[in-house]
Amino acid sequence: MSRPKYKGFARRGSDRLEASLTLEEPRSPFARLWRVLVGVPIHSELEIHERLTKKKALAVFSSDALSSVAYAPQETVVVLLTAGAAALFWSLPISIAVVILLAIVVFSYRQTIYAYPSGGGSYIVAKQNLGETSGLIAAAALWVGYILTVSVSIASAVDQLVSAVPSLLPLRVALGVCAVALVTLANLRGIRESGSIFAAPTYMFLASMFLMVGLGMFHLIAGDLVVTPPSGLPPPVAAVTPFLLLRAFAVGSAVMTGTEAISNGIPAFKPPESRNAAQTIVAMAVILAVMFLGLAMLIVGASIVPTEQETIISLLAHGVFGDGWLYYVVQFSTVLILVLAANTAYADFPRLASLLARDNYAPKQLAFRGERLAFSNGILMLGLLSALLIVVFGGSTGALLPLYAVAVFAAFTLSQSGMVQHWRSVRGRRWQLKAGINGVGACATGLVAVIAASTNFMNRDLPIVPGLSLGWGSWLVLVIVPIFIWIFRTIKAHYAESEAVTALPMDCEDLDRPLRNVVVVPIARLNRPAVQALRYAQALSNDVTAVHVATDPRAAREIEEKWPIWGRGVPLTIVESPYRSLTRPLLQYLTELRRHEKAETVTVVLPEYVPDTWWQHLLHGQSAQFLKLSLLFTPGFVVTSVPVHPEDDEDAEAPLTLHA
Amino acid sequence: MSRPKYKGFARRGSDRLEASLTLEEPRSPFARLWRVLVGVPIHSELEIHERLTKKKALAVFSSDALSSVAYAPQETVVVLLTAGAAALFWSLPISIAVVILLAIVVFSYRQTIYAYPSGGGSYIVAKQNLGETSGLIAAAALWVGYILTVSVSIASAVDQLVSAVPSLLPLRVALGVCAVALVTLANLRGIRESGSIFAAPTYMFLASMFLMVGLGMFHLIAGDLVVTPPSGLPPPVAAVTPFLLLRAFAVGSAVMTGTEAISNGIPAFKPPESRNAAQTIVAMAVILAVMFLGLAMLIVGASIVPTEQETIISLLAHGVFGDGWLYYVVQFSTVLILVLAANTAYADFPRLASLLARDNYAPKQLAFRGERLAFSNGILMLGLLSALLIVVFGGSTGALLPLYAVAVFAAFTLSQSGMVQHWRSVRGRRWQLKAGINGVGACATGLVAVIAASTNFMNRDLPIVPGLSLGWGSWLVLVIVPIFIWIFRTIKAHYAESEAVTALPMDCEDLDRPLRNVVVVPIARLNRPAVQALRYAQALSNDVTAVHVATDPRAAREIEEKWPIWGRGVPLTIVESPYRSLTRPLLQYLTELRRHEKAETVTVVLPEYVPDTWWQHLLHGQSAQFLKLSLLFTPGFVVTSVPVHPEDDEDAEAPLTLHA
Repeated sequence: MSRPKYKGFARRGSDRLEASLTLEEPRSPFARLWRVLVGVPIHSELEIHERLTKKKALAVFSSDALSSVAYAPQETVVVLLTAGAAALFWSLPISIAVVILLAIVVFSYRQTIYAYPSGGGSYIVAKQNLGETSGLIAAAALWVGYILTVSVSIASAVDQLVSAVPSLLPLRVALGVCAVALVTLANLRGIRESGSIFAAPTYMFLASMFLMVGLGMFHLIAGDLVVTPPSGLPPPVAAVTPFLLLRAFAVGSAVMTGTEAISNGIPAFKPPESRNAAQTIVAMAVILAVMFLGLAMLIVGASIVPTEQETIISLLAHGVFGDGWLYYVVQFSTVLILVLAANTAYADFPRLASLLARDNYAPKQLAFRGERLAFSNGILMLGLLSALLIVVFGGSTGALLPLYAVAVFAAFTLSQSGMVQHWRSVRGRRWQLKAGINGVGACATGLVAVIAASTNFMNRDLPIVPGLSLGWGSWLVLVIVPIFIWIFRTIKAHYAESEAVTALPMDCEDLDRPLRNVVVVPIARLNRPAVQALRYAQALSNDVTAVHVATDPRAAREIEEKWPIWGRGVPLTIVESPYRSLTRPLLQYLTELRRHEKAETVTVVLPEYVPDTWWQHLLHGQSAQFLKLSLLFTPGFVVTSVPVHPEDDEDAEAPLTLHA
Repeated sequence: MSRPKYKGFARRGSDRLEASLTLEEPRSPFARLWRVLVGVPIHSELEIHERLTKKKALAVFSSDALSSVAYAPQETVVVLLTAGAAALFWSLPISIAVVILLAIVVFSYRQTIYAYPSGGGSYIVAKQNLGETSGLIAAAALWVGYILTVSVSIASAVDQLVSAVPSLLPLRVALGVCAVALVTLANLRGIRESGSIFAAPTYMFLASMFLMVGLGMFHLIAGDLVVTPPSGLPPPVAAVTPFLLLRAFAVGSAVMTGTEAISNGIPAFKPPESRNAAQTIVAMAVILAVMFLGLAMLIVGASIVPTEQETIISLLAHGVFGDGWLYYVVQFSTVLILVLAANTAYADFPRLASLLARDNYAPKQLAFRGERLAFSNGILMLGLLSALLIVVFGGSTGALLPLYAVAVFAAFTLSQSGMVQHWRSVRGRRWQLKAGINGVGACATGLVAVIAASTNFMNRDLPIVPGLSLGWGSWLVLVIVPIFIWIFRTIKAHYAESEAVTALPMDCEDLDRPLRNVVVVPIARLNRPAVQALRYAQALSNDVTAVHVATDPRAAREIEEKWPIWGRGVPLTIVESPYRSLTRPLLQYLTELRRHEKAETVTVVLPEYVPDTWWQHLLHGQSAQFLKLSLLFTPGFVVTSVPVHPEDDEDAEAPLTLHA
């Protein structure tokens, strides 16, 4: 028999249909607006095409790391200057140390990328090699880190905008939330498009930076690089101690975050994924190292000291380009890259969340790919949480930043230690060397985590981003991370329990026998919906009973009188309710009926009049809703509403859908 | 066949059960508290016993009128004093005029009480004799009046309390809302008990007033009534004009409100209802007249002028009782009676609301008698609306009082005019005389309405209750009453429409034929709930189809593989959804299935896992809820959830009920 044609579907076999794109057409103004903002849904089979080229991947995954050159050198200098202008020299060796650390971490992660081609973030590596708890610690630390990245970097970009246009000050929170919404929306459009959106500003920033550093070097060697000297430095308040140098080093190591993002996001690369990811991570490291060292040399060579009014970047740009338009290109692209720093978290958090969801540690909805193949729920969750942080902290989320370095470097350490364990169990060619590289990485990142935590354990006086005044100590990480882990475990326990309850047993006797069902129709008034409900009930079963709970004897008499005409032969029981309550007597009657009829289920068929508008609901008793809610929580009862519509037309079109 | 025993019910016939009181036992702490506050439910057959004796009826229905002696004489004097101390004399003739008006109104209403033994409020009388619009105007005016009575009198009682204990000032609104809640609760306990609660303070007030007026008269005649003279009166600002006297008269006529309450509440009296009601209204009028005239004579005889610190009642009580405990009895019972003035509205509003509901002008729930046989929904509605007014106006609802007199007297006029029309059509013995009496009543009340409206049409400078400072003009009545009427009519139109839709037709062909139903089970995962849903579906129909919307090809393959084992022979259709949406393809599939199967209804059986706690709901997809909502608004579909509970025990107890 040829199967009939189903409108809106393509037939893929005798019992297989495929939904077409026409079904996804937006039907409401809101849906149409959403379609414009987010774009046309993408077919699942195109997932392989929704990948990033290396160029776009560099923009998507490294904007956070690259943006750090806009503030990390400056903050290193600020820390050093507490020991006087003579200490400025130390910024060069510290930058070299940071670059060495970067090299170690990148080499270490390159190995992870090849060892875990389907995504080797800290969570995966730590969980597989060090056990569940280590994995969850890494995941919790990274969640904290990503949420903070978004709110902190957006808030600081807004701060820079506000210091340029002070009249915007009252709109600080609103601007921050809008910026989060925009970045969220761009990411909902899908990974490839958000890559395109963010590539241009990233490369503009890189180009202008390289031009500035290159020209600056040239002028430095030629001896004509003139940077406005500061009006007068404050006297030194500290000596050059190892502690001071370590703090300066911890500030500089903020450049490292992009490495985790790339190794978590391997599946977003075009094939061959691992090789492309590995090349991208190396490219990122080289670019960073060059910019970082170049800036350090210029700072030391030209003795650049930031003033209260002007950042080092701005001073240098003035020195190199004067007041020309190139100066403004540098400044503008610096602000942009600070906004884009948030995007690294958007590329990474939803992916990590989907991994946790797949392992049942997070709500399953986070593993769902939206209409544009992005993990839309994770993107929305990140957007909501960071917007919430911005609102709660009134736009001053910078105070939370110190937590960030501790959390991220702790995750790195776990990941690198996991890799050491990995090589020890996998072995293979030159495994001792590989384990050694990862071991060095683990030690280095662990050291940075300890430095970052110990230099501001109780409260923050380490200005990582300009404008910070009050901060939370890194102890807060010790509170938040266990809370996250407890949430992860609670969710997993719930899924395990519901899995156990809903699992199909080996012996299926009780599921094999047919089910005995009795159908009851409660009659409130004998009208058209009631008769429709009786007709429907008779289509379900030969064993139908009707019941009327009589709160008003006159209404009961009227029903009894009309029953022979309209009752369709169904036996009617009158339950008098002399205390005028409806639900209690009916529930008790149904319970007793089930017991006497030895039925496995009792189906309660309720006629339901569906009014046109919401206020009309208030004019009809809500007893049906109460009954439904009461019975939902009682095993053995099924409630069925037979909707009766004001216009009950026969040839209904496809129903209006709700956004699901 | 002897029918089985149903626990919790008494058998009243082969197909008739009666719910016993045990079913109403409270099962939650909240329900137990409610039981303590409101009392044990009362059997419907006891309605005739839940009636008021004349003594209690006087307390319930007249507290508003009686309380007016606490302020009406004083306010008359205040109005007159604007024309100087010499004008004080006029308060005696004005009081006589008020008493004459009272006599006219009471005689007029006595006739109504006998003519409408089942309740003859303005709404009924005006509607039956003058038409729907007049009835609705009367009803709307009375609603406004009753809601204002409660909020205004409670707020003014709170004001008096606050002027005694100024530290309570910040709690003004809270105290008002608490007082409203207490009066509401007392009324929810049922009419008889609230009568008992309110009788004692009312009679204490009457006794102390009569004692004070009697002793005062004795001292006045003996010539030794000494009342502290005021320190100095302000100079007169107006002359004794007819307008001034009319204003003073309008203030005094506030005593009239109890008459409407009694004639609306006839069914609350013990039988013979009409005679008891008529005797009660006369008793109220006599008591009021005596107190009113007595006070007026004392005021004029002893030249009592209120001061800013002390009211006339207080001055008089001091003069008669000195500083003894009897002085405090008078003051205390005066405050109490002001609170109880609210109770008249509670006795009357719910009854009027139930009449409107019975005529479909108000939500039907207002005609429902609660567990204590009181119209609980009407009582709650009055409590909520007046508490809302208190909150919105920050406890200064006195500003709204002028509207009250206009609204109530307009309703009186409509009622009396209706009675004239009534006698003209009914005729009978001495009908001209009866029509004449009601005609005089109509003219008198109409005149008062016009006076009350015209003396403060644009804004209020007539201090009816002490403490008023800013007010709304009576024009507001012209806005509010039409809005109420529009609401009444809209509700009636909706009920008429739904009545027409749900009415049973004369030719019942389409309702006679059996209904063709197809059952579909959407399968998300092949687990225990899904198999239970299949078993249930097979109990409903021999024509069951299963469908899986495949957003993930792996999950679809898994279901297809397991289907031969667990599918119970039900045909399975796979609908591939390459854009990963669930609801749209499923809805379209169901629509097409219904069309091809030519089914009148499609029953969608959904397995529903019911988690233990609310947050666990968030961990499961809400697609089932979206689907239900979407299908509820589409004719031809019925959605049935088969609940699967974490512990699916077979011997379930009666389900926990929700408050309905």
